[in-house]
Amino acid sequence: RTKVNTNVHISFPAVCFVWQTAMIILFGIFIRYNEESDPHWVEHKKANNLSDLDNDFYFRYPSFQDVHVMIFIGFGFLMTFLKRYSFGAVGFNFLIAAFGIQWALLMQGWFHSLDAEGKIRIGVENLINADFCVASCLIAYGAVLGKVSNVQLLVLTLFGVTLFAVDEYIIVSVIHARDAGGSMSIHTFGAYYGLCISWMLYRPNLNQSSRLQGSVYHSDVFAMIGTLFLWMFWPSFNSAISDHGDGQHRAVINTYLALASTVLTCMAISSLFNKHGKLDMVHIQNSTLAGGVAVGTAAEFMLMPYGALIVGFCCGIISTLGYIYLTPFMEKHLKIQDTCGIHNLHAMPGLIGGIVGAITAASASKSVYGEEGLINTFDFEGKFKDVVPTQQGGYQAAGLCVALCFGVGGGILVGCILRLPIWGDPADDNCFNDEAYWEVRQYQTTMHSVVHSIHLQKL
Amino acid sequence: RTKVNTNVHISFPAVCFVWQTAMIILFGIFIRYNEESDPHWVEHKKANNLSDLDNDFYFRYPSFQDVHVMIFIGFGFLMTFLKRYSFGAVGFNFLIAAFGIQWALLMQGWFHSLDAEGKIRIGVENLINADFCVASCLIAYGAVLGKVSNVQLLVLTLFGVTLFAVDEYIIVSVIHARDAGGSMSIHTFGAYYGLCISWMLYRPNLNQSSRLQGSVYHSDVFAMIGTLFLWMFWPSFNSAISDHGDGQHRAVINTYLALASTVLTCMAISSLFNKHGKLDMVHIQNSTLAGGVAVGTAAEFMLMPYGALIVGFCCGIISTLGYIYLTPFMEKHLKIQDTCGIHNLHAMPGLIGGIVGAITAASASKSVYGEEGLINTFDFEGKFKDVVPTQQGGYQAAGLCVALCFGVGGGILVGCILRLPIWGDPADDNCFNDEAYWEVRQYQTTMHSVVHSIHLQKL
Amino acid sequence: RTKVNTNVHISFPAVCFVWQTAMIILFGIFIRYNEESDPHWVEHKKANNLSDLDNDFYFRYPSFQDVHVMIFIGFGFLMTFLKRYSFGAVGFNFLIAAFGIQWALLMQGWFHSLDAEGKIRIGVENLINADFCVASCLIAYGAVLGKVSNVQLLVLTLFGVTLFAVDEYIIVSVIHARDAGGSMSIHTFGAYYGLCISWMLYRPNLNQSSRLQGSVYHSDVFAMIGTLFLWMFWPSFNSAISDHGDGQHRAVINTYLALASTVLTCMAISSLFNKHGKLDMVHIQNSTLAGGVAVGTAAEFMLMPYGALIVGFCCGIISTLGYIYLTPFMEKHLKIQDTCGIHNLHAMPGLIGGIVGAITAASASKSVYGEEGLINTFDFEGKFKDVVPTQQGGYQAAGLCVALCFGVGGGILVGCILRLPIWGDPADDNCFNDEAYWEVRQYQTTMHSVVHSIHLQKL
Repeated sequence: RTKVNTNVHISFPAVCFVWQTAMIILFGIFIRYNEESDPHWVEHKKANNLSDLDNDFYFRYPSFQDVHVMIFIGFGFLMTFLKRYSFGAVGFNFLIAAFGIQWALLMQGWFHSLDAEGKIRIGVENLINADFCVASCLIAYGAVLGKVSNVQLLVLTLFGVTLFAVDEYIIVSVIHARDAGGSMSIHTFGAYYGLCISWMLYRPNLNQSSRLQGSVYHSDVFAMIGTLFLWMFWPSFNSAISDHGDGQHRAVINTYLALASTVLTCMAISSLFNKHGKLDMVHIQNSTLAGGVAVGTAAEFMLMPYGALIVGFCCGIISTLGYIYLTPFMEKHLKIQDTCGIHNLHAMPGLIGGIVGAITAASASKSVYGEEGLINTFDFEGKFKDVVPTQQGGYQAAGLCVALCFGVGGGILVGCILRLPIWGDPADDNCFNDEAYWEVRQYQTTMHSVVHSIHLQKL
Repeated sequence: RTKVNTNVHISFPAVCFVWQTAMIILFGIFIRYNEESDPHWVEHKKANNLSDLDNDFYFRYPSFQDVHVMIFIGFGFLMTFLKRYSFGAVGFNFLIAAFGIQWALLMQGWFHSLDAEGKIRIGVENLINADFCVASCLIAYGAVLGKVSNVQLLVLTLFGVTLFAVDEYIIVSVIHARDAGGSMSIHTFGAYYGLCISWMLYRPNLNQSSRLQGSVYHSDVFAMIGTLFLWMFWPSFNSAISDHGDGQHRAVINTYLALASTVLTCMAISSLFNKHGKLDMVHIQNSTLAGGVAVGTAAEFMLMPYGALIVGFCCGIISTLGYIYLTPFMEKHLKIQDTCGIHNLHAMPGLIGGIVGAITAASASKSVYGEEGLINTFDFEGKFKDVVPTQQGGYQAAGLCVALCFGVGGGILVGCILRLPIWGDPADDNCFNDEAYWEVRQYQTTMHSVVHSIHLQKL
Repeated sequence: RTKVNTNVHISFPAVCFVWQTAMIILFGIFIRYNEESDPHWVEHKKANNLSDLDNDFYFRYPSFQDVHVMIFIGFGFLMTFLKRYSFGAVGFNFLIAAFGIQWALLMQGWFHSLDAEGKIRIGVENLINADFCVASCLIAYGAVLGKVSNVQLLVLTLFGVTLFAVDEYIIVSVIHARDAGGSMSIHTFGAYYGLCISWMLYRPNLNQSSRLQGSVYHSDVFAMIGTLFLWMFWPSFNSAISDHGDGQHRAVINTYLALASTVLTCMAISSLFNKHGKLDMVHIQNSTLAGGVAVGTAAEFMLMPYGALIVGFCCGIISTLGYIYLTPFMEKHLKIQDTCGIHNLHAMPGLIGGIVGAITAASASKSVYGEEGLINTFDFEGKFKDVVPTQQGGYQAAGLCVALCFGVGGGILVGCILRLPIWGDPADDNCFNDEAYWEVRQYQTTMHSVVHSIHLQKL
């Protein structure tokens, strides 16, 4: 790919318009307000002697907004670390998310919220789930950051959301695994999906853009905005759709603790494996978040505060070592070029999270949870009322395998599609360069003005 | 205005001190805590068998904080895109807002919350309304960014808040139009207010500062912080003061969808009208928000999810085309220099929002809203209990006209005042330059150090 | 200290690992979920006829997240103003906070939440209190920013959290002073703790790094992110742990007003004392926050809206004058080098806050608060049921003295420890320099590329 046409002049607007028009039509056919966002709520409320506060809105909206910030600011700014790809990081992140949430509302709705009249009834919980769904595509974007066109990203998102919805339906509804924070369905799936796409799109001559494949001082500071908003709001992510009351409360505590522990071990490893004991911003920006990924599944379980600390402790070490040893190894020997190191931040911690979830579920007991608490936490109701914790542990493990298979299979499939020479992807020497897809005005100017001022000096 | 005195050494501190002292006196006379923020609440609660949760604080505080972020971070950082006016963007935005919210509490209080004893009783809803009120002044600031002094901004705010309070009183209380997200009272009013001021302050020789009238790479990234916080929290803006329960819930869903749709069409148009299909950060920073403006009025109505998508679809197109064609046209032929393009982001979408609101209200029916839902949503109570939806549609249209008249009339009036040669505004060749009003230390230094290092090299 | 070894290759990872392991063990022994985050909540809820909403989570979680943002983004970015110490500002802030919150949960738990079985039961209020606790260490960090190693910061935090917990226990539980927003226990203590450490670590030859002791344009914009998030969320800080209902509501209103007032007088003084009437970013970044510090104690009392404005008015003036006159004086004559000027932002406003709290408490009356309101607000229950407001005023004053003594005493003690030549602190000519503790890649590169491009031009 040394000579390619990065012109997406027609294809990009065409995809956007066709897609958005399709969304309007499908929303017109399928999407309606649910009971709690419909004006008939006032009658329902009186009939059932409820208060306005019983509207799910008041349980979920603060968490929803935190998740929203993670999706748009968190993921977007986390990827601004490259010196000349900040527009692409923030801007294409914005594009993927805005594109994906609409399709996610439909796909998830068809699987989970379809009523007798064939309508999807949406409320705040659907908005959170749509944000969760695009999170998996944004994770995948991290692996191909700077190497694909915006049209390719739309294709990646279209398939990613579709696969996610099926994957999540199987894990949560068919297998009956619990996955409130999405260690399996979001992180494991999203990461392997992205890694396999990156593998399919392997560029042997990527070193031609090596001049752009690093950070500058201020781009690293911008990336910390992303890191910190992800870090701070991760408790909301893991608790946003867990059970009202103690479920949300416990998920927050576990996530808060796991993340705190991760920061310490991440920094320790970063310093220990540096020649002069110096810290590396790449590790701080990414590996400090691994603990949040890894308690995603078990956050609402009785992981115990010390359990959360242990999970964070291990993930901080593993994830940082991943950046030091595994990412270069994968690039050299496995032909996987992982721009943001999502293997270290999402794939490995996601797998750990699935395993921790399975173990925690399998070891649940009535003495620890209480009889009602056990039913409540694991949703042992309806056709699952006879499930025992050890079985549930098996379900969790099965869920993890499904996520892994969907990620790898989906990634290879979509990677094949993205290899077609019609998508306007950049040449090898033009990767990680905003100038391929954005009007960038001033870089030359700044240089010129400096050079100019020197010429004046010489005269 | 080639030779002017930008020294605000005496006038600026004097205005601040006089004003803040006046505020203390007026607050001492008029402002008290309302029932829910007064220590007697504990008695009121017991007498009425309420829970602490029935305190409006718990319904509104999360939305309030989101709105607060939009006002200070959102509007502030959105305007940091200019290469040398970031201090002015964030700093004067901060000044206007802190100055304006106090006056807004009084002005809005006199119109809406005055009790029998002549006291204004404030609670969290008043704080939100004060933030809304200054939003209109911050919109107006966008039109004159970089071309006025801080003293002029205080005058703009003083009159802007006053006009807003009267305008809003007429729209909401006299005419009985509904305007939860302020498409009319905030955006339409604020935008035309600012545009008319900018017209009155037309500078024929503004091209003398053309070297400063663009962005640099990192100033564009800073501006995206503003864009994204506005985009993410817009659902809170439109729902912050709508009805408890389904009203807030529905307003969030409609705003979320309209904004998602806008992103796609904005990017499509930006790419389509660029020679090489490249995206322009100016469009992404601004036009992606147009959908939020345009569902401001109708967000709490039964706009329907697909209706919200359609509104967003259209606004993304219109707003982006506005940046491409209308802004240069207005500057050249109408003598309106609109630094941030507020005509495209607030004026046109605001008008669309008013019209959408009128249509949605006029087409409301008992079958869609339910009998109680209709009364509840449109507040058909008290002396308005016999209003029918078609009438309400007319009220909405009347409200839009009032907002437009106040904006244009107020802008011309205040523009006249701001033309007086006493305000310390910058010379034509010194616009968009922080050095006029801020201590800026390092620009020269960086250059010098580069130049210096080259000299060393040459020796 | 002209030749020192900044190598923390072994010591830093060792401290992190030992510490994190100790935390896991201590959490295993002591920390458990409290009633509201335990799965037995579902039984408790039914037995007491409660709703899920009665879980404290829904009262406190939105405020908790705002406080969390203040700790990690607010304090972190506020300190990024130095041109070459942004990694240290954000990164070490992150380290201190993640390290400190774990120890704070234990220390505060032992003093406040230990149950009959010797377990500490934690919920969302504990998480907020842990965040509050580390805030005092982050304030102290402001005084020594750029002059200490990361190992020293861990020691500072270890002792800081310990001292804070004892200090807070004495103030709140023994003396029975009220201090919801922590003017005394957080700000006064933290500031004097940091100042005394800085005094003990006085560097006579610090001017050797004067080239790095200033800001560049974009570092000042980054710092405004910190300022604004602190400013916006300060109402949540002061209300996060105050009484449900009117207490939280009133604390928000008072803080909102005090902060608005501070902005005006801060900017007025900044302009008035500048030769050309220009504003100084240092003042805007810091002194605009002084009002929030100073209403910390009295925010939940009947300070009255005009009272809040008066407090903000005074603090804006005092804090800004502090930056202009006191900081240079302290450096020259008292040998206290206060990098961020925490004496002006936290120490003086904290003292004012303590005094305002004492006066407001002493002048409380049944006519203003109502009988139940007075009991509720000042917690005149149990063994304190016979306290009268004037007594409470004395308690408040006593609390302020305790905070001051702990700050000064603790700072001198810890300063002595930090003077030991084993901590890897930077040489005098290497202060305020990220290169001492971080891998910094690109600074040279950018320069080289400019210089290189000039060489090409010359050829």
